[in-house]
Amino acid sequence: MLNPDRYFDPAPDVRDLARELYGRAARLPLVCPHGHVDPRLLAENTPFPDPAALLVIPDHYLTRMLYSQGVPLEALGVPSLDGTPVETDSRRIWRRFAEHMPLFRGTPSGCWLRHELADVFGVDEPLSARNADAVYDRIDAQLRTDAFRPRALFERFRIEVLCTTDSATDTLAWHQQIRDSGWTGVVRPTFRPDLAINILHPEWPAEMDRLAALTGRSIVDYRTYIGALEARRTFFRGMGATATDHAALTPYTSRLSDHDASAIFARARAGEATPADLAAFTGHMLMEMARMSVEDGLVMQLHPGSLRNHNAAVFERFGPDRGCDIPVATEYTRNLQPLLNAYGNDPRFRLVLFTLDESTYSRELAPLAGHYPALRLGPPWWFHDSLEGMQRFRHAVTETAGFYNTAGFNDDTRAFPSIPARHDLCRRVDANFLAGLVARHVLELDEAQELIVELGYGLAKATYRLP
Amino acid sequence: MLNPDRYFDPAPDVRDLARELYGRAARLPLVCPHGHVDPRLLAENTPFPDPAALLVIPDHYLTRMLYSQGVPLEALGVPSLDGTPVETDSRRIWRRFAEHMPLFRGTPSGCWLRHELADVFGVDEPLSARNADAVYDRIDAQLRTDAFRPRALFERFRIEVLCTTDSATDTLAWHQQIRDSGWTGVVRPTFRPDLAINILHPEWPAEMDRLAALTGRSIVDYRTYIGALEARRTFFRGMGATATDHAALTPYTSRLSDHDASAIFARARAGEATPADLAAFTGHMLMEMARMSVEDGLVMQLHPGSLRNHNAAVFERFGPDRGCDIPVATEYTRNLQPLLNAYGNDPRFRLVLFTLDESTYSRELAPLAGHYPALRLGPPWWFHDSLEGMQRFRHAVTETAGFYNTAGFNDDTRAFPSIPARHDLCRRVDANFLAGLVARHVLELDEAQELIVELGYGLAKATYRLP
Amino acid sequence: MLNPDRYFDPAPDVRDLARELYGRAARLPLVCPHGHVDPRLLAENTPFPDPAALLVIPDHYLTRMLYSQGVPLEALGVPSLDGTPVETDSRRIWRRFAEHMPLFRGTPSGCWLRHELADVFGVDEPLSARNADAVYDRIDAQLRTDAFRPRALFERFRIEVLCTTDSATDTLAWHQQIRDSGWTGVVRPTFRPDLAINILHPEWPAEMDRLAALTGRSIVDYRTYIGALEARRTFFRGMGATATDHAALTPYTSRLSDHDASAIFARARAGEATPADLAAFTGHMLMEMARMSVEDGLVMQLHPGSLRNHNAAVFERFGPDRGCDIPVATEYTRNLQPLLNAYGNDPRFRLVLFTLDESTYSRELAPLAGHYPALRLGPPWWFHDSLEGMQRFRHAVTETAGFYNTAGFNDDTRAFPSIPARHDLCRRVDANFLAGLVARHVLELDEAQELIVELGYGLAKATYRLP
Repeated sequence: MLNPDRYFDPAPDVRDLARELYGRAARLPLVCPHGHVDPRLLAENTPFPDPAALLVIPDHYLTRMLYSQGVPLEALGVPSLDGTPVETDSRRIWRRFAEHMPLFRGTPSGCWLRHELADVFGVDEPLSARNADAVYDRIDAQLRTDAFRPRALFERFRIEVLCTTDSATDTLAWHQQIRDSGWTGVVRPTFRPDLAINILHPEWPAEMDRLAALTGRSIVDYRTYIGALEARRTFFRGMGATATDHAALTPYTSRLSDHDASAIFARARAGEATPADLAAFTGHMLMEMARMSVEDGLVMQLHPGSLRNHNAAVFERFGPDRGCDIPVATEYTRNLQPLLNAYGNDPRFRLVLFTLDESTYSRELAPLAGHYPALRLGPPWWFHDSLEGMQRFRHAVTETAGFYNTAGFNDDTRAFPSIPARHDLCRRVDANFLAGLVARHVLELDEAQELIVELGYGLAKATYRLP
Repeated sequence: MLNPDRYFDPAPDVRDLARELYGRAARLPLVCPHGHVDPRLLAENTPFPDPAALLVIPDHYLTRMLYSQGVPLEALGVPSLDGTPVETDSRRIWRRFAEHMPLFRGTPSGCWLRHELADVFGVDEPLSARNADAVYDRIDAQLRTDAFRPRALFERFRIEVLCTTDSATDTLAWHQQIRDSGWTGVVRPTFRPDLAINILHPEWPAEMDRLAALTGRSIVDYRTYIGALEARRTFFRGMGATATDHAALTPYTSRLSDHDASAIFARARAGEATPADLAAFTGHMLMEMARMSVEDGLVMQLHPGSLRNHNAAVFERFGPDRGCDIPVATEYTRNLQPLLNAYGNDPRFRLVLFTLDESTYSRELAPLAGHYPALRLGPPWWFHDSLEGMQRFRHAVTETAGFYNTAGFNDDTRAFPSIPARHDLCRRVDANFLAGLVARHVLELDEAQELIVELGYGLAKATYRLP
Repeated sequence: MLNPDRYFDPAPDVRDLARELYGRAARLPLVCPHGHVDPRLLAENTPFPDPAALLVIPDHYLTRMLYSQGVPLEALGVPSLDGTPVETDSRRIWRRFAEHMPLFRGTPSGCWLRHELADVFGVDEPLSARNADAVYDRIDAQLRTDAFRPRALFERFRIEVLCTTDSATDTLAWHQQIRDSGWTGVVRPTFRPDLAINILHPEWPAEMDRLAALTGRSIVDYRTYIGALEARRTFFRGMGATATDHAALTPYTSRLSDHDASAIFARARAGEATPADLAAFTGHMLMEMARMSVEDGLVMQLHPGSLRNHNAAVFERFGPDRGCDIPVATEYTRNLQPLLNAYGNDPRFRLVLFTLDESTYSRELAPLAGHYPALRLGPPWWFHDSLEGMQRFRHAVTETAGFYNTAGFNDDTRAFPSIPARHDLCRRVDANFLAGLVARHVLELDEAQELIVELGYGLAKATYRLP
């Protein structure tokens, strides 16, 4: 069912080259420098519960599409925050999902799922209403075996390193448990201080309390706050982190004077900060995070441009990360000028930029990455992590930024068993892109052979400073 | 002259698949849920006047291109508003047009015209200065026959349903005449209240008078105004309408309080409304139109982002719709949030969105349509209703929104004899797109076979709630 | 090493057509209506110094890419303004460059360089660390021969006309020297008054002094300033200029009253102009330049949307044009409305528009060019003057603007020996684009045969009114 030439250009010359290039990348270990797998999975290593709980309920790529066609999230077992009853029968959820498989035609979710079913679970027939129960039973039975526990899959997937994403005040206890277990799988945390910086978030005061408790310091003012964040970065580095990650509605950066930063921080602690304070403080803290990265060597990732929780009704009932985050146009050239002027020429600094606004690929991101030594372009993000999206990225950025200013692949997923499918899709797209360049005599074959290994393996390690 | 494989990918594997898929859509009836054909044509069913009056003078896609290369609109017989004399000899207009055919190389107008000449009029030779007179004579002779009257063409074109676009204060007398005639062709009106909402338009007071006269109500305040619009929607539904249509410079939406809406309406009636009032009122009335759609089930269409009448000199001499409307960048994520939060989760509501800003396809429109149940993406609009434009649309939106959140095809034309050419081009592009997915093993052939019928026929009917 | 089918679609049907079409353009003379070659080269006609000084040091496309990967500009011999010592050994610079050739994989610089080495210097082997010295020696030896002097190369390249870009206060002495020399090569100046209009530039007062000296007039007020600029345009026309060129951060245009323009000019002369004055004055002077173009027939070029000198540290050390100019989103529809309303319908006026914001191709530029008689779209600019960029341009604009509203090719380069490579790449891309249209039966072969000569030769001459 999985055609060995899938995703390649059907023109025979290109297909043959793509096949040969893909062959050089297909079995390389997986480097996963950015993602959202819960480290508890690998710490506890208990079996996954059932097919729906593993593959459907937590995957907002799937549930949003069904929701868009009238299937209530309740019927898909998405847990509600407000006590609304939701479906709890996993088999019924699975059947509902299977009935709607045509919705995923032509989508990356459809491609990943097909790969996952075939390659991880040996299910070669397309999932449909007709075979829903049989497929459920087959997967369910496998999930009860040791070979399908998280660590076994990690090894079977040939994951060389998996980086998680962790709040600045995460104790990293699950990471510690993994280290203590004697298991040889490499799992690294990533420092993501979004909540600690979001001075208007209702949870921010509690986050400050956690920050104080974990660092054994009173967070009495801006100076002690910065010190506590630096201490947490040091702790994360000690636990193996090589990177930080930052979300923001815009990539606005601008350094405040110590006086102004201190004043905003004091207002925030007093519960008197304004939206303008938040914007100024966020722009300042990105500068501070870059400054700290220069000093401690953690690679800085920036993911801007998503307007979170667009649908208030869904957010209120089901909370965040339910497929209701919608991109907005994003400006990088002016917004990042202060940060890049301050740190972009420094060889110690590394910034990996992402976007949901593809119009910036050729207009802003590739020209910036083709100039500033500190900058690398992250792979196509979220909606664009797809067959077409990855092609558009390579077509739009390569001529201006080259290959070596791009960061390799991120699977960026919480869906652990989809990891091989995602890397495989990317390696196929890259192989096909390189094949097209060879077929048009832009590249020599030996250059493409070297590049496919870089794109599928080497650049991710180098970009994220992974040993 | 019309190659049977036209517009298909030249790679043999894809071409063969495209041919097979297109074959399944080629003879499906035409569903025309949005367009600008004058219902009078089909009510009176009198012969079309002559080739230039039918094919050149009213088609601003053609006249704008000749104008851009220095041919005065006067020489093309475009009627002037200011008494400027214009060419009245249809044969001379036709010759002028024929001489400039090279301008349409590579354009959809060129593709449509070639199809129309060959398929409707049996003219297989490319139109040129050399054969202009002969082609004129041949078309002219046919237009005098009964087989080329509007209803005969409607039937020959296999049009299942044709929706027109009608002002809120249109009496729909031509629609009534069609119904009364006993002819079985299905022609439906569409409720387009742009003028009734545009409180700064010089014609708005007269529109209010018409609204009062047609509904037998005094439009004394905002409340009676809303009541009168609701009455007109009821009338349109009774005449077969299944949809409304709305143009706006931006898709800004925001509900006003009754008090504020009433105050703006009162200022408008007093001739004292400001541009800020117009913007606020337009954003509010889009909310109201959505509210009414929830209640009466009319599908709401929104066509934002065209800056009308960019060229003042042409507008003054020739009026609107002369090819002088130029797109502007358009923002959907934030602008539509109020409307989608209020009504986007309601299964009774259906909103079809259009854009002239292709950068929004993957950034905003596909993510929105891949989440909100009420939303469907309209087909590529206007400049983008073309071979390349339709390909870009499918490539940009499918992976995030899927196929089933798109609305099928609109021919959106006032050029009645071009309707089959437009549907044919779209069906070929869709067949070719699906063929590419099959050739790359993203879709199975049976899935593509099912989809081509949906894209070419089923989705338009379902989206527009056509029986 | 240079494959005769390079850059063509690998599908055999398209490739064969592309080869046939390219064959009709390959040997046409080169028309170079916009570029930055120093006329002194052709006036003095002295040998080029050495391979690094000719091919590496002045080419910011190359040095920026090496800089982005950590090679200091100092090590590449880029002259510093602040006394920082830089590498002066050309052979060492060349080696450094050669070692980093993999950075140019998939870039237009890589394509051009390969063509240039093979076709101009007979170096067929890919440049690398291994052969750096041998290639250096080979080029260096040739540069000492008369056959590689500028005029000899100009003739060997079959350049029919080469337009330079010259400040409004350039004496055009080198141009005069070329004319006086009796050499038959045609070199024309282009009037670029950016500095004379930039009232906040530190050099502006000196520019006013030069303007006064060259025109023999006192620049005492706005009226005399305008008169002096008109006098310089007349001088440039007398020296063979057919065009002007204008850079601006945005294409904002708006006419000031004489009173307001005079007041701003007076403040500027007093050193008291503000940034708002500069913006208003720039928008006004674009109107004035258009007005003068209507009167004197010089073709007006506008290159907006580059934020210059983004990297302050590099700018301070190395000055402008070092690869630190980054594009910003650009708006044309509203910004150009005043200018196009005033002059866009006038047959005497010709405006050639450029962009670095590809999202405007289909949204704004093609609709504008497909309507206004004065407007032509310049070829893909700067980062987009590339294999993919030129394809995107044709795909995005052709359907709306047609071919005949585009301006043909500009090589736009200061790198004299790269000129043939740039024209060749463009002719191949155009041939391949046309071949794709023929293969999909959008164009007939004879139409494409006519068009390839227009795109590769005729349109540039016609657009720029070159005799």
